[in-house]
Amino acid sequence: MDVFFLGTGSGVPAKLRNVTSIALKLLEERGAVWLFDCGEATQHQILHTNIKPRRIEKIFITHLHGDHIYGLPGLLSSRSFQGGESMVTVYGPPGIKEYIDVSLKISKSYLKYPIEIIELQEGVIFEDEQFIVEAKLLEHGIPSYGYRVKEKDRPGTLLADKLQAAGVKPGPDYRKIKNGEEVTLDDGKVINPAEFVGPLQKGRIVSILGDTRVCENAQLLANNADLLVHEATFSADEGSLADEYFHSTTLQAAETALNAGVKKLCLTHISSRYDRNDWKKLEAEARTVFANTVVSEDFMEISVHYEQD
Amino acid sequence: MDVFFLGTGSGVPAKLRNVTSIALKLLEERGAVWLFDCGEATQHQILHTNIKPRRIEKIFITHLHGDHIYGLPGLLSSRSFQGGESMVTVYGPPGIKEYIDVSLKISKSYLKYPIEIIELQEGVIFEDEQFIVEAKLLEHGIPSYGYRVKEKDRPGTLLADKLQAAGVKPGPDYRKIKNGEEVTLDDGKVINPAEFVGPLQKGRIVSILGDTRVCENAQLLANNADLLVHEATFSADEGSLADEYFHSTTLQAAETALNAGVKKLCLTHISSRYDRNDWKKLEAEARTVFANTVVSEDFMEISVHYEQD
Ligand SMILES: [Zn+2]
Ligand SMILES: [Zn+2]
Repeated sequence: MDVFFLGTGSGVPAKLRNVTSIALKLLEERGAVWLFDCGEATQHQILHTNIKPRRIEKIFITHLHGDHIYGLPGLLSSRSFQGGESMVTVYGPPGIKEYIDVSLKISKSYLKYPIEIIELQEGVIFEDEQFIVEAKLLEHGIPSYGYRVKEKDRPGTLLADKLQAAGVKPGPDYRKIKNGEEVTLDDGKVINPAEFVGPLQKGRIVSILGDTRVCENAQLLANNADLLVHEATFSADEGSLADEYFHSTTLQAAETALNAGVKKLCLTHISSRYDRNDWKKLEAEARTVFANTVVSEDFMEISVHYEQD
Repeated sequence: MDVFFLGTGSGVPAKLRNVTSIALKLLEERGAVWLFDCGEATQHQILHTNIKPRRIEKIFITHLHGDHIYGLPGLLSSRSFQGGESMVTVYGPPGIKEYIDVSLKISKSYLKYPIEIIELQEGVIFEDEQFIVEAKLLEHGIPSYGYRVKEKDRPGTLLADKLQAAGVKPGPDYRKIKNGEEVTLDDGKVINPAEFVGPLQKGRIVSILGDTRVCENAQLLANNADLLVHEATFSADEGSLADEYFHSTTLQAAETALNAGVKKLCLTHISSRYDRNDWKKLEAEARTVFANTVVSEDFMEISVHYEQD
């Protein structure tokens, strides 16, 4: 589980930061990549990575501003020519369907794979045996969603050595014990499954938020996350600009991270008014409130590991 | 008058060639840039040039395939943040208006400048005192236009030395002579304007064609052009592929150039199946038929000079 930043700028593409797109790489988990937002030239950025467009399974759009969606028609069309045959599901605010449908229709682009477009409401928007994804509205003037991706907890592994020592033979009994069932051996000994199964593997949580002002839902979505990806369009001293344009400062993002009890904070959607020399300053501002903060850069990757107990 | 290639690839963006966009730089002539097509990431390519988005006055779309239009919404939106205040006129096949309108509407992009979108029919689509632009349909499965940009001929300059020698004083008489009027001097001498005005400056012609199979209209649009920009998606031996996909080979483009009597041919829309090593071969193929041929590359510029007599 790795978060790869394809574009980390805001508003207009710049030489050092493209407009927003973030890939959640779930290659080990499900051989898939989930995209969050798809600004113009996201497919161009992908050309310089090892991401395979055919592996893109889901695309979550936070909001409909151009710097978050103008790369969608191109990425979807090109995927047909890059071996993409499996279904893609796009989640986004109402309007996303019309945008995609009209763009593909006018350009006579016929996808060689099925596409499903789901216009969002708040709540659980996806769930399977591995993951549960929840969306909540943030504050950005237009509907802007934050996403909380929670990996489900996994039962602990069987403690094979201990089972063998207790005289349990591999086979059906192992399966029963793994499923939490009590087993009585031939000699009458009763095996309590809890004693022969390792600790539960807690699922990881990644929260990726759209553009927003400070708001309660940001904190709820980030609650106890292993990684929070939060916009920080402005530096700490630009609170009133941030407020006026429905964005956040470095400090505000750090406060949300602190209040939510996350493990790591990554700042993105950095305004192009800040150049390379300013980025360390932005990071330092946030670290005064939340120490484990990094400022994203295009092509940066953050691995999200299981908690070590 | 310079033709600058922003994107010279076909279909899908590749590392070495972006999808199509061509800038006709008319900086000396009218302080303006005209774009022909606007594939995705055209605005990103522009970031690496000296082209100012605010100077873009007209955008001519050849056809509605994604690789020719997906950069339009981003370019138009960003221009608002890059000092663009003057009107932009977009010309393109029917459907271009819906595409632009829906993209800007859904993304809540409000341009700070007026935009005019003209859905094309064949014929003269623009004319002022400097230029006349004509569009004709090519053969590409969907409506695909070629554009012929003709600079108007300019009257010759006044031959000041000769006028002075003949005793004509600068002022109203000069203007009359320049306008082709006969002037009678105080001493009764009659000045024949034709003798005191240099030769007519013939306007230059640039023909920029959309994707097409060989067709008569391509040749008509290119007639006597100083520069013909023609697609050559395929190499000479792929005539049947070119035919099947409504594209041209290097040889076919060269034949059109030869038959039209152009001065120079530039091949573009090169398939990504050809790598850097193949490009010289493509050029050589065309040169067997039309010697003055070059294969375009991204960021290449061709100056179009006045004819030397
Ligand atoms: Zn944004
Ligand atoms: Zn094309």
